[in-house]
Amino acid sequence: MPWEKSFDTNEILDRATAVFWAKGYEATSMADLLKATGINKGSLYNAFGSKKALFTQALLKYDREQRRDTLTQLKAMNDPVGAIGTLFEGLIAQSLDDPEKKGCMLINTALDLPNHDEDIARAVKAGMADFEAFFVHELEAGKKTGTIPGHVDPEKTAKGLLTLVTGLRVLARGVFDEADLIAIKSQALDIIQ
Amino acid sequence: MPWEKSFDTNEILDRATAVFWAKGYEATSMADLLKATGINKGSLYNAFGSKKALFTQALLKYDREQRRDTLTQLKAMNDPVGAIGTLFEGLIAQSLDDPEKKGCMLINTALDLPNHDEDIARAVKAGMADFEAFFVHELEAGKKTGTIPGHVDPEKTAKGLLTLVTGLRVLARGVFDEADLIAIKSQALDIIQ
Repeated sequence: MPWEKSFDTNEILDRATAVFWAKGYEATSMADLLKATGINKGSLYNAFGSKKALFTQALLKYDREQRRDTLTQLKAMNDPVGAIGTLFEGLIAQSLDDPEKKGCMLINTALDLPNHDEDIARAVKAGMADFEAFFVHELEAGKKTGTIPGHVDPEKTAKGLLTLVTGLRVLARGVFDEADLIAIKSQALDIIQ
Repeated sequence: MPWEKSFDTNEILDRATAVFWAKGYEATSMADLLKATGINKGSLYNAFGSKKALFTQALLKYDREQRRDTLTQLKAMNDPVGAIGTLFEGLIAQSLDDPEKKGCMLINTALDLPNHDEDIARAVKAGMADFEAFFVHELEAGKKTGTIPGHVDPEKTAKGLLTLVTGLRVLARGVFDEADLIAIKSQALDIIQ
């Protein structure tokens, strides 16, 4: 099979990521992964090692391409309040546009952390710490230029904003509707004013 | 086996709940449930119908005994700011005291809602709506007596607080430490001041 011989590891990883993201680690079977990637079990094991190793690589790729790249773009706005508002708007739009309501793979995995091993826990903690650092950076920058008031404590507020992002991503998977999600964004902007 | 003949359905349900709560629906096998409950498969099916029906009953019992009863006690404090602070303190203490870091069964299930059916979705949405209504009630009561300032919008703030509770429960499963969780509580109290 020519496909088998020349498959694109990156493309396979994207397809596996989509399944893990929607179903979670535990509910994803080897059959799901073979169907989604279109390669055989031997090739999958040869390329990625194990289901766990494949999940870890998928999570790291997701974190890089979805979270880190988005935050890098937002930082480049050089407009802390605008960047935080845009972040929440983007999360709401992504949540509403996704018919599978997959949420955020990083946060989905964070919820299930006690059932994962150290490699995965490390990846999740690093991604979330970097997310928190983004908020600290924006809050400090906004305080410096005066767009965020002096009484805002960047460390505490960054944790509050990360907690709102986390809760939003969970509640957007079926509990909250659009108006509810917009209320969270408004709440987030209130705490930096 | 005398145990098989006279098992206490309530006790069996509690034991099944503990497994579902820690591992989640999908990762809980029939073998896990039989081991935890100590009864055989036939008895389990006779008493509860199916794994799904057992999970639904476990979730409803959890929601009643953990969420609803706690909120009823907090309401009885007749001190909205105190009740909201005590709620967050209780969630932090529960999160830190649990060696399994199980989080909240309702919120764990909310995250996985797209992978559950309508019965379970209904139970989760009802529990979360009631949680939100608790916050609206406390905020309105506080505004009436003047302990919560007039500018606080009860509807929006209730959604913000529920989102903080949800995020806290996720992050307490391994991402945030005690100081981080206390910062969330402080953030929650800030938005009602």
